[in-house]
Amino acid sequence: MSFLTLLDYASVLVFAASGAMVASRAQLDIIGFAFIACLTAVGGGTVRDVLLDRNPVFWVGDPVPILLASGVAATVFFTAHLVESRLRWVIWLDSFALAIAVPAGTGVAMELGHGPVIVVLMGMATGSLGGLMRDVVCNEVPLVLKQGELYISCALAGATVAVVLLWLGSTPATALVSCAAMTWVTRAGSLIFGWHLPIYKGRPPRS
Amino acid sequence: MSFLTLLDYASVLVFAASGAMVASRAQLDIIGFAFIACLTAVGGGTVRDVLLDRNPVFWVGDPVPILLASGVAATVFFTAHLVESRLRWVIWLDSFALAIAVPAGTGVAMELGHGPVIVVLMGMATGSLGGLMRDVVCNEVPLVLKQGELYISCALAGATVAVVLLWLGSTPATALVSCAAMTWVTRAGSLIFGWHLPIYKGRPPRS
Amino acid sequence: MSFLTLLDYASVLVFAASGAMVASRAQLDIIGFAFIACLTAVGGGTVRDVLLDRNPVFWVGDPVPILLASGVAATVFFTAHLVESRLRWVIWLDSFALAIAVPAGTGVAMELGHGPVIVVLMGMATGSLGGLMRDVVCNEVPLVLKQGELYISCALAGATVAVVLLWLGSTPATALVSCAAMTWVTRAGSLIFGWHLPIYKGRPPRS
Repeated sequence: MSFLTLLDYASVLVFAASGAMVASRAQLDIIGFAFIACLTAVGGGTVRDVLLDRNPVFWVGDPVPILLASGVAATVFFTAHLVESRLRWVIWLDSFALAIAVPAGTGVAMELGHGPVIVVLMGMATGSLGGLMRDVVCNEVPLVLKQGELYISCALAGATVAVVLLWLGSTPATALVSCAAMTWVTRAGSLIFGWHLPIYKGRPPRS
Repeated sequence: MSFLTLLDYASVLVFAASGAMVASRAQLDIIGFAFIACLTAVGGGTVRDVLLDRNPVFWVGDPVPILLASGVAATVFFTAHLVESRLRWVIWLDSFALAIAVPAGTGVAMELGHGPVIVVLMGMATGSLGGLMRDVVCNEVPLVLKQGELYISCALAGATVAVVLLWLGSTPATALVSCAAMTWVTRAGSLIFGWHLPIYKGRPPRS
Repeated sequence: MSFLTLLDYASVLVFAASGAMVASRAQLDIIGFAFIACLTAVGGGTVRDVLLDRNPVFWVGDPVPILLASGVAATVFFTAHLVESRLRWVIWLDSFALAIAVPAGTGVAMELGHGPVIVVLMGMATGSLGGLMRDVVCNEVPLVLKQGELYISCALAGATVAVVLLWLGSTPATALVSCAAMTWVTRAGSLIFGWHLPIYKGRPPRS
């Protein structure tokens, strides 16, 4: 199994857990857990593969990710009551999944020989779109749009690090691991220390 | 016309009616009815065809489904006031559409030679995603997420029946008809008798 | 650069501005502005290219549209406070983007040799789906569903004009320019003069 496949699998596991946690907040049954877990787990990578015309889509060629995500969903169904704050788990699981999915998307686009802009975009899309689908379908406020938090910016920073390191001559593995680290550290810093970019502030409304 | 094309057409007709009924709840004009009807009618099959790289997408190769869905939308526009409860019509039309679309998706994936997991998934995706798009775009609570109702589970049950029957040696036609029956009976049983799987129940909130 | 590429670029610029304006209403940071601007700008054309199996998707083959949309987003981030009503800007920018994207979609489908129904549909999809994604992700009421306004109908009218003119023997350029004019005039007429089609009105609810 290649390093890229491994990254796809790891992001599937962690995104699936975050999806199942959101399903628990919506009080679905076990099949609903599996549905949301699979949507979250493979959503970003599926968009990447369709956009890059990569055939077959990774989980259509090999359905193991779907089985893994379903297994994770079942586990969460029986254990989610053990944790204190499910929303906190969603947020932190999502941060790890983001940090794994961004290099997964970046790596696939590099391997297909795309230029730096597309490589960065595919990292961002793979990292953020599964979670976005989860939130839109389950009617949660999309994490990607939370005010005053870094999210899509972390994906951008991570993917950019990968492209720059590779351009400087580092190995793909180093580039992808640094990408994951950059993505996670900026996201965690935002969650713990409140790191953020200035948000848009319009004029005060007319009185 | 092959049996599979016929199934696609039938699910188009019934999903279009459910979409038009939702459009009537949103008080759109006749073109808005057609737009939502078409989105609902071809949404699931389109995702299936894109994921399986089936070219062309069924309604791009032959736009009859779009014309049918638009015709249904126009008919509903002029007759929806005749029915007592439009929400009930949405739910029951959707149940028939689900029961037709699941074997349509299952059959296409079988015909392309995919394994059992992908066949089941394509049945579920074709059955549920058109209705999901309808509900997300029109801001209804997605039927697929209604608490304490079977929905995606019916698609799973139906598609599984098809795969098992085929594996036991039955003809494709028998497998697909049984799939439709299983899907509809479980969905109808859930609507009439309240059949459901246990939903996730967390601990009571801390006081 | 061909006329069609030019149309794609122009619709990217204007849709990006509308997306960035919506991002300002959601008070995102500058990367969030770029994300929503890019989603809006390339969303409709991406769906068109995936459905028509046009490879590569226009912005994957040439990422200039992404860079343009990001540049527009940055500009709006620093200037949106200068305008009086951001919602009005969103609506009018969107009307111009619609009027450019409909001929862009129509033209691509014509060039690929599709029949009139698919040509019209691709015009409608390219014109409306980017804005629909923007509104669903940002939790605005989709413009496409606003009661008593023409929107998707303008796309239909414009695309139909293009198909009819071409069938009557006019040049593609004339057909596409007339398509843009028809789309924009009907949309603007709806916004200024309240032009609309009759909306669905059910019976009054039982008392």
